[in-house]
Amino acid sequence: MPRGPLMIIGGAEDKVRKPTILKHFVALSGGRDARIAVIPTASSLGREVVEVYDALFTKFGAAAVDAVRPESREQAHDPALVKAIDEATGVFMTGGNQLKLSSIVCGTPVGEAILRAHERGAVVAGTSAGASIQSSHMVAFGVGGATPKQRMTQVAAGLGLVGETVIDQHFDQRNRYGRLLMIVAQSPQLLGIGVDEDTCGLVEDVDGDLVMRVLGKGAVTIFDGSRMVSNAYEAKRSSPLLASGVVFHTLPEGAVFDLTTRALVAQQPAVDPEEADELAEAGRDLRQLARDIAAADATPAAIARRLKKRRTPPTSS
Amino acid sequence: MPRGPLMIIGGAEDKVRKPTILKHFVALSGGRDARIAVIPTASSLGREVVEVYDALFTKFGAAAVDAVRPESREQAHDPALVKAIDEATGVFMTGGNQLKLSSIVCGTPVGEAILRAHERGAVVAGTSAGASIQSSHMVAFGVGGATPKQRMTQVAAGLGLVGETVIDQHFDQRNRYGRLLMIVAQSPQLLGIGVDEDTCGLVEDVDGDLVMRVLGKGAVTIFDGSRMVSNAYEAKRSSPLLASGVVFHTLPEGAVFDLTTRALVAQQPAVDPEEADELAEAGRDLRQLARDIAAADATPAAIARRLKKRRTPPTSS
Repeated sequence: MPRGPLMIIGGAEDKVRKPTILKHFVALSGGRDARIAVIPTASSLGREVVEVYDALFTKFGAAAVDAVRPESREQAHDPALVKAIDEATGVFMTGGNQLKLSSIVCGTPVGEAILRAHERGAVVAGTSAGASIQSSHMVAFGVGGATPKQRMTQVAAGLGLVGETVIDQHFDQRNRYGRLLMIVAQSPQLLGIGVDEDTCGLVEDVDGDLVMRVLGKGAVTIFDGSRMVSNAYEAKRSSPLLASGVVFHTLPEGAVFDLTTRALVAQQPAVDPEEADELAEAGRDLRQLARDIAAADATPAAIARRLKKRRTPPTSS
Repeated sequence: MPRGPLMIIGGAEDKVRKPTILKHFVALSGGRDARIAVIPTASSLGREVVEVYDALFTKFGAAAVDAVRPESREQAHDPALVKAIDEATGVFMTGGNQLKLSSIVCGTPVGEAILRAHERGAVVAGTSAGASIQSSHMVAFGVGGATPKQRMTQVAAGLGLVGETVIDQHFDQRNRYGRLLMIVAQSPQLLGIGVDEDTCGLVEDVDGDLVMRVLGKGAVTIFDGSRMVSNAYEAKRSSPLLASGVVFHTLPEGAVFDLTTRALVAQQPAVDPEEADELAEAGRDLRQLARDIAAADATPAAIARRLKKRRTPPTSS
């Protein structure tokens, strides 16, 4: 059994108008057979948050939704909570304070059960704090800003569902370029992954590579510091960092990126069906025209008539 | 005579507490021999802005400060204004609306005089709008945000003091990653240069290469799209863009970057004199210790005594 899909959601996913990401989560978890465990520990409004996701996942057809809500490391040893995760086909971690979530669940039976769920093929999803905790190295907290500065953020240990990475969320909306870059500048072996709001990196194991496909309204930004030059080990206090030669990728919906080889996976360009029909017709016209010219059978007037016949040009202006 | 230095200032340069950048401009322009032409056309408070820079440049020792303030293309043909620029050792363009500045001066005798000043070796500096106009392709206006989206900004033609570039300013403070990236995604031959507030890219001609040294409090960010994969030619309306494989550099004070070869220029690490003395002393101690050990003359107690003698460790913790 391959490891299950991970859904890394940048927070504020649409719940009302166009809840593409949450519907996708239920579908991946088995649709009408889905058993979802919701972990709201990051949130200070745990009960209310569970009610919202319970209503949504039920509406999208899930068979069962269980709240798994440890509020201390002691509670994270509760066998009933572990059982709910062990029986789940999908685990969903809500937003809130990722350091609360990680410091309560990591290294406890509940934390182990989440890792086990991933290993046995269940879907593990998380939004905002629930996205951050999926990486091996987690942004604990920090400040916004585009320019990376020494000490602008702190790193803690995450669950490590995605190894050798650091994940940040609300990326565009809270201007978190700088803090993610600071972490990559200090730890260049980590791949920096910044996820916008209402956007999801869907990570799957494809022949041993971790391959991410982007869903949703925004983009996923990748920082690859493999060949970077940096002064992070000697920069003073809060001064801006040198980080030269970082390779980056900003990936909108539909883009596919191999996190293991750190390279874009080429996609067929998406063409809408109507446009495809027009293109095919234009192609036939041009081939006919080429034949006419070859047969010395095309006067300028005949060419003009043929081109006029077509209502739309073959390419956009 | 080589072309003169360019100072590309990201806006809000310190004028009171630590006016490093403006002092540097006066010094480069000749110090006590400096004749400065201030061009406040971008600003809607032209007269007041000139008064501020006049007071500052005079305080920093400039011999003369002239206002060159065309408010229309017609006025930008005024021989008196052209003469003031032709006699200047330094030209300073203020902040404001860069599209007002470019649409009044570009392609007029005043615009030609600025280009001529650069060619004959005078310093040409500009802050905010006055920075933007120095590039060949200028950000006309646009919106903030970290994720590049189709149509989030518009490009107009700048003075072209720095060719094949697009310069943006207030870069960190107004979160302009996205719009600069959008332009680079659409025009990958342009090098994107984003300058933070109170920060300056000082560009000089070094053996035919344009070499930039960073001064000031923030950083200069470079986007190099040479090897980028992008969907900019087919992305719809305001959707996020794909831009994969952009190489970028964030450069704090002291960093040197070759804009022509698009590569960091290696610098000697800066070591403060006190630290250097300590390092030298620690080095002597270690050499002595190595000699003692080689002479079988070092007991553990002697080594401990020697190490204890030193008040500070040779490296930081």
